[in-house]
Amino acid sequence: MSEAWERLLPRINELEDISSALRLLNWDQQVMMPPKAAAARARSVATLGAIAHQRLCDPEVGALLDELSEADSLDEIQTASVRVLKRDYERATKIPEKLVRELAETSAIAYQTWTEARPADDFGMLEPHLTKLVALKKEEADSIGWSQERYDALLDEYEPEMTTKEVEQVFSELVAGLVPLADRVLPAVDERPDFVHATYETGPQNDFSQWLVEVLGFAKESGRLDTSPHPFTIPISVGDVRQTTRLDERDLLFSITGTMHETGHALYEQGIPEEMLGLPAGRVPSLGLHESQSRLWENQVGRSRAFTDFMLPHLKERFSDQLGLVTPEEFHRAMNHPERSLIRVIADELTYNLHIAFRFELETAIFRDELDVADLPGAWDEAMEKTVGIRPTDTKDGVLQDVHWSIGALGYFPTYTLGNLYAAALWAKATEQLPGLEEDLRRGDGSRLLTWLREKIHSRGYLESAKETAERVLGEPLTAQPLLKYLETKYSEIYDVAS
Amino acid sequence: MSEAWERLLPRINELEDISSALRLLNWDQQVMMPPKAAAARARSVATLGAIAHQRLCDPEVGALLDELSEADSLDEIQTASVRVLKRDYERATKIPEKLVRELAETSAIAYQTWTEARPADDFGMLEPHLTKLVALKKEEADSIGWSQERYDALLDEYEPEMTTKEVEQVFSELVAGLVPLADRVLPAVDERPDFVHATYETGPQNDFSQWLVEVLGFAKESGRLDTSPHPFTIPISVGDVRQTTRLDERDLLFSITGTMHETGHALYEQGIPEEMLGLPAGRVPSLGLHESQSRLWENQVGRSRAFTDFMLPHLKERFSDQLGLVTPEEFHRAMNHPERSLIRVIADELTYNLHIAFRFELETAIFRDELDVADLPGAWDEAMEKTVGIRPTDTKDGVLQDVHWSIGALGYFPTYTLGNLYAAALWAKATEQLPGLEEDLRRGDGSRLLTWLREKIHSRGYLESAKETAERVLGEPLTAQPLLKYLETKYSEIYDVAS
Repeated sequence: MSEAWERLLPRINELEDISSALRLLNWDQQVMMPPKAAAARARSVATLGAIAHQRLCDPEVGALLDELSEADSLDEIQTASVRVLKRDYERATKIPEKLVRELAETSAIAYQTWTEARPADDFGMLEPHLTKLVALKKEEADSIGWSQERYDALLDEYEPEMTTKEVEQVFSELVAGLVPLADRVLPAVDERPDFVHATYETGPQNDFSQWLVEVLGFAKESGRLDTSPHPFTIPISVGDVRQTTRLDERDLLFSITGTMHETGHALYEQGIPEEMLGLPAGRVPSLGLHESQSRLWENQVGRSRAFTDFMLPHLKERFSDQLGLVTPEEFHRAMNHPERSLIRVIADELTYNLHIAFRFELETAIFRDELDVADLPGAWDEAMEKTVGIRPTDTKDGVLQDVHWSIGALGYFPTYTLGNLYAAALWAKATEQLPGLEEDLRRGDGSRLLTWLREKIHSRGYLESAKETAERVLGEPLTAQPLLKYLETKYSEIYDVAS
Repeated sequence: MSEAWERLLPRINELEDISSALRLLNWDQQVMMPPKAAAARARSVATLGAIAHQRLCDPEVGALLDELSEADSLDEIQTASVRVLKRDYERATKIPEKLVRELAETSAIAYQTWTEARPADDFGMLEPHLTKLVALKKEEADSIGWSQERYDALLDEYEPEMTTKEVEQVFSELVAGLVPLADRVLPAVDERPDFVHATYETGPQNDFSQWLVEVLGFAKESGRLDTSPHPFTIPISVGDVRQTTRLDERDLLFSITGTMHETGHALYEQGIPEEMLGLPAGRVPSLGLHESQSRLWENQVGRSRAFTDFMLPHLKERFSDQLGLVTPEEFHRAMNHPERSLIRVIADELTYNLHIAFRFELETAIFRDELDVADLPGAWDEAMEKTVGIRPTDTKDGVLQDVHWSIGALGYFPTYTLGNLYAAALWAKATEQLPGLEEDLRRGDGSRLLTWLREKIHSRGYLESAKETAERVLGEPLTAQPLLKYLETKYSEIYDVAS
């Protein structure tokens, strides 16, 4: 084995050990930490982050990576690890320290301001901070470098090797199909049934979620399911993948779909092969591909008639008063109730991607210098009305609804829809290659599907980009057609609307 | 303010931030971590530990400490911080790195061997590792340096500024009083009542503990109570003190006394003034003083007739079937049931310190080269029979019962009894200075006591040694008399035995 690799490996391990501690600090902060620890925790995170950054940016790391990029003695995992770490190294060393600090400070202030501006319905409070943040993100993009357009550099952080042009193309194909479909389906949708508004104790909700994740194949000897206000999944280390769900006694369905969603993320992380874990090659290659796994388990599996039929009796055991008389059809409809809503995070499969599409449009306009932050509220309302078909009456549930921009996560939104596009395409391929899959799910058995996903996606880690992995599995580049076809079929069946 | 202090402070903060992360990794490992993460966690802990050690041992830290030790411009907290950090620095730099590594490796192996040797009842398995560990601990003591005897250097790690001679003197005074007291009380003790052996669901036990810690003044906005197999308390950071209790449906009393014990530790940590927190001056000065707080709340408060009378109705609310007919007197007796038992961790107030006294005797004999590790099992049985009045029939519940020696925690045991001695002495002083304290406790109100402890002990942090703090509060050096008098009174009353 390469001597340079032998020298790089302890540095990779050290970085991984520090990052693992950072991920635990993060998990704990969201799940366990008492409120008065916030300031001390922020300092601890900043200190470990600075140490990790120092170690990553050590010129010796750069020299070893240069040497190893030319080496031909490395195996597949080592080669990928060198490529991925080189990407980290270059991003970390290209962005000037002063800019890193300014970005951190500005987004901390902007986030804090957002938490006050949103309830106050006052975009003006946030505007100067967001303007500054956008200017800094432009600087950041220019430091990293880009070829076609500036937004590429931002997108690349979350969806490596995907270009703005590519996203634009597949999104416009998607919107062109979704808008008429929504126009056709939504008038046929009835009221939500009463049982959706009943009260469900959180204890049995939690029991159900704890049971469900194991049914789906989540390994608790190497993971945990807890609760937090914002559900998330985080891989702490080898043998330790943690997910959370949110329990709300006024919203049973959210805990079910939220748990299925996070379990999709968690199954991906638990499916990374042991020999890659802790190495850069053992990371998930993009947020979009990560989201494809969460969406596939949440939507294609979790909201399918086969799986809602499987779940209902198990829910009735725990909530006989509230669900005793609910029919399988009613439950399935409730799990698939579409409507034009103002809020992205509660949007259904039919309208969700419209929310993303117009955000992406606004983000690219900003980074093409075609839109000023000051003009965002009006542009938001226009774009939302045009795309989603509903117009906000305030900024609280309009332009201020998402946290992303205030924390500088620009270029992030499109990965949600890329996830939905990948999920539908993978699902189409899986049902083609796994006959009888629907019958499996009717028995609550996702094991053949999981094995397929592990072989096709999870086992590849970051040996290639998300785009490459997906194209290899799909046999063609990503298009909007599988998602459009899936939604067309699903909603035509449920609401009996001819196409 | 001193310019050298301004240069030292960021280093102190960085060390604290790394240590805080290490404490969280430790807490999580015992309370939350899934089993398959053990190897990765060990590596993460080792990496952060090495980084902290490097940063502490930086010669620049030594130079700043030397300069500041001479400075007269520092305030009380800064002066204490310099003194405490200098102690850390000297211990860390005096012990050669090779020895540190050998100690870590040998104790890891010895601990692993102990987990197998104990159930196998086979001291021979552990002996070679323990022999090696003792040799290394002797080397360690010699590296650190000592004046009167080698054991001083070990003791000093846990009970700074206390000497072996001092411990020996107060322990022999204690044993001389305890042995005849036990001989007089124990024959009068009846069987444990039936309710002790009932089954108590862990859910309501947990509810009771969560309620109890708040009654005692534990602030949950800056702390947590969880469960773990071995209860412990750990201060994670400013605003974050975590304690655990153990829940066992066969042992209600353990969860009560365990919770009171850990709450004592946690109240101490929560009582360190904010301006010292995160600085070396904000540490608890010794394990003995720490233990005095846990023992005081567990024993002097928790097992008092006033407080058991207060708790009983609250327990009956949760366990009416099991406790409905239990009288306050029966409950108090059950909470104070003494017997000659083989196992230290379940020993009562009357016999506990006898267990410690003979362990201390054996440890000092080893470090005075008067006893070989190979002869420990026989020496153990002899010493135990002489001091506790009961002889083990195997090594599992004899010399192999405690984890301490296998992890190299030699010099640790005496701090348990020092804690009991301090607790009784402080309690005597508190009852003298706080008339009506018993009536407070009968109402479940420990607030005046807590305020007194905060003023006298907690607020002092590590501004002085434990011995100095205690002597200031007690007005005299520590003796065995307060503890002997307390036990004499308590057991004479309960079991009606004349003195």
